[in-house]
Amino acid sequence: MRPNDEQGAGAILGGFVAAASWPDVAAQSHEAKRSILNFFATAIGSAYDPAVTSALRTLSSFSGAATSAIIGRPERFDALAAGFVNAISANLLDFDDTHLETIIHPAAPVAAPVLALAQARGLSGRDVLTAFILGVEVECRIGNAVSPAHYARGWHITSTCGVFGAAAACARLLGLSADGIGNAIGIAASQSAGIVENLPTAAKNVSVGNAARNGLFAALLAAEGYSASARAIEGPLGWARAMGDEPDLERLVGGLGQSWEIAKNTYKPYPAGIVFHAVIDACFKLRARLDQRLDEIVSVAVHGSALLLARGDRPVRSDRDARVSIHHCAACALLLGAAGVPEFSAAIVFQPDIVALRQKVRAQLDVSLRDGASRVSIELASGEILSETVMAARGSLADPLSDLDIEAKLHECSRLSGTAWNANAIIEDVWRLDGIADISRLMNQHDDAAT
Amino acid sequence: MRPNDEQGAGAILGGFVAAASWPDVAAQSHEAKRSILNFFATAIGSAYDPAVTSALRTLSSFSGAATSAIIGRPERFDALAAGFVNAISANLLDFDDTHLETIIHPAAPVAAPVLALAQARGLSGRDVLTAFILGVEVECRIGNAVSPAHYARGWHITSTCGVFGAAAACARLLGLSADGIGNAIGIAASQSAGIVENLPTAAKNVSVGNAARNGLFAALLAAEGYSASARAIEGPLGWARAMGDEPDLERLVGGLGQSWEIAKNTYKPYPAGIVFHAVIDACFKLRARLDQRLDEIVSVAVHGSALLLARGDRPVRSDRDARVSIHHCAACALLLGAAGVPEFSAAIVFQPDIVALRQKVRAQLDVSLRDGASRVSIELASGEILSETVMAARGSLADPLSDLDIEAKLHECSRLSGTAWNANAIIEDVWRLDGIADISRLMNQHDDAAT
Repeated sequence: MRPNDEQGAGAILGGFVAAASWPDVAAQSHEAKRSILNFFATAIGSAYDPAVTSALRTLSSFSGAATSAIIGRPERFDALAAGFVNAISANLLDFDDTHLETIIHPAAPVAAPVLALAQARGLSGRDVLTAFILGVEVECRIGNAVSPAHYARGWHITSTCGVFGAAAACARLLGLSADGIGNAIGIAASQSAGIVENLPTAAKNVSVGNAARNGLFAALLAAEGYSASARAIEGPLGWARAMGDEPDLERLVGGLGQSWEIAKNTYKPYPAGIVFHAVIDACFKLRARLDQRLDEIVSVAVHGSALLLARGDRPVRSDRDARVSIHHCAACALLLGAAGVPEFSAAIVFQPDIVALRQKVRAQLDVSLRDGASRVSIELASGEILSETVMAARGSLADPLSDLDIEAKLHECSRLSGTAWNANAIIEDVWRLDGIADISRLMNQHDDAAT
Repeated sequence: MRPNDEQGAGAILGGFVAAASWPDVAAQSHEAKRSILNFFATAIGSAYDPAVTSALRTLSSFSGAATSAIIGRPERFDALAAGFVNAISANLLDFDDTHLETIIHPAAPVAAPVLALAQARGLSGRDVLTAFILGVEVECRIGNAVSPAHYARGWHITSTCGVFGAAAACARLLGLSADGIGNAIGIAASQSAGIVENLPTAAKNVSVGNAARNGLFAALLAAEGYSASARAIEGPLGWARAMGDEPDLERLVGGLGQSWEIAKNTYKPYPAGIVFHAVIDACFKLRARLDQRLDEIVSVAVHGSALLLARGDRPVRSDRDARVSIHHCAACALLLGAAGVPEFSAAIVFQPDIVALRQKVRAQLDVSLRDGASRVSIELASGEILSETVMAARGSLADPLSDLDIEAKLHECSRLSGTAWNANAIIEDVWRLDGIADISRLMNQHDDAAT
């Protein structure tokens, strides 16, 4: 089916999302649970980050009935505000999930408003899983249709495409018709925003949070009868072309229900930009071979694709910079043998021995290496050169995190954040989410912990 | 001063907005009052439009403390929600003000959040005027820097640039420093959205409302310490280039304080797209010459620029279409001698004699006519041809509406909407706005009317 003047892409996607039943999506539900568990891990990990606390303070005068939990914290806000804040915290550490083909982080903009809305309305775990799987499908298909030029041009694709996924998922959760879901997707096109230039700053949080908030808002407006152009996404003056792309309609709507984008989701072992993960893995291998001879390192050459260099060959002025720095990722992996949340905190980022080792790191283009791969070579004072190449980083589709790895990530994030939410209870509830009649059970963790 | 890595355009604009004092802007205050009076007229005119009522119903569960009036109605919402809704109503009839060079409608996205915030905080009329003038300056300068390609590519420029004006104005109203205002402007860059493809639908309202709401939100976040990239607007992966334009930096920040964009604001006598106003004026002249011989019209040829044809040569399927239809504007002006709010209502748009005359109208390109001009030629059954050319429509800079015209517009919009707000009181307060100590006085019209 190809979009045309009568039935645009929004209506085709809306029809698919409206018609899908639990049996259609059940085979994707385990990956959805892994995504949602990883979402809880990263949201809890940043629950008390100053950027989250500032957002809550800003919204405190602007929230209606407090129906929905701020994940990892005691506060509740209305579903729009909770969706906004939980998407921020889930994305803040650069530790969330990744759809590698588009570099969309699918869960933050979709799971945040879905859980906030489902809690407000007392919906079931199966409702949540269905909406989440379908929302991620819409989000990533729209991303596929404009990749890779869209991100390269300066659009923060998690924000710009996340709003569509949030709209579709929330419209499904509200029980809208095919037309209503299509309108929600079309309304999302008029709210799609977020630029790469702002990624090193708190303004990034705003576009990620808005993707979640405005997707839910689009669904609520569509439920009240607001409509959109039939060709809001692919029309001549529509979203894709305004953003600079000729949309690939086959990737947008071809084979709906036959392949699933959530099946391609991946989870990070390290809270750093996804392209740096192979650098870290290569450095871990080198560290094992170095056998304590860290003082003898003269220089470190990190080889990778143009994307790696474009994203990560930059000075480190803040802990935020460190998450997207080739130099810092190599330095902490070599020197500390670790690249977890603490290794990207200011305390370690500005530790003198880390700063000194960062200065020995050079990034070098190697066009033979594909995106996501890296070769790291160390020259020692003796003249000896050690080299390791990693083609598929830990956490990638070829070497995925196990369910236990994701559970461990949740435990670690809980421990670091000092949350009162009960990690074991979250883990238990998420794995059996399709059997939970009212999602409030999962979202009321704080109350449970307090009793 | 040119933007550079250390001081970007946002910081330069922020410094200007922070430093401007009342004596710097006082000479612009009469035009600002005309803009605000026109804003009240159009907001009141649509106060009870179903799209406004739907938006209020949607937001009713998501508003905090009810500090700010919904203009023309009894409800109050929090300042974010009131800013959203009042921007929608002010823009809904295509009757709001126009900055002709960019086709930005400046007031809706800026006045709505400024008034909502000022009411919530009990600020003065002089505060409002100052913030409004400076916000319009930022909004239109950013529009100038990317015009005309930006709109032509599919960006709804009132939405995409309005958010910057709202951010700058609200940040000023909050008393932020130059850095804080620059950050608010940079945060706005991550929220700028809205597409032309959605203009014939309610999704248009969402981007206009969001421009107001999100500009205020950016200012509130900046007040809580949220920051943005120094080069969010003009950087290599920033707003302008992601949107497809090489920004004109001279137009962005050259001569700040020496020229004023609000001095170029215009007000519509007819609730239709601005390019159709010359068509309507030409038809009024022809109607006077026809002397009742309307039955003898065989055909109507409307000549204009490529822009006129691109915007208005389309079928009329709804009253929304009629506002941007060459055919309807000509038909109602010729047949009824009027082109006010009633002439664009469904009752008249689908009246049989209007439908029949619309079908006799043909649009023809004349490259010798500039944008905003039109020549209309009528062929009569006798073979006689009557022709009128209008180079500057009523309401344009060359033939501006008088203060009394704008007052009359407010009275007419009040009458049509059935509002309980007191038009005379609004008019009186706006003309002496710089002497009002607390803007709540103006925004509490409903309470006054009820007592």
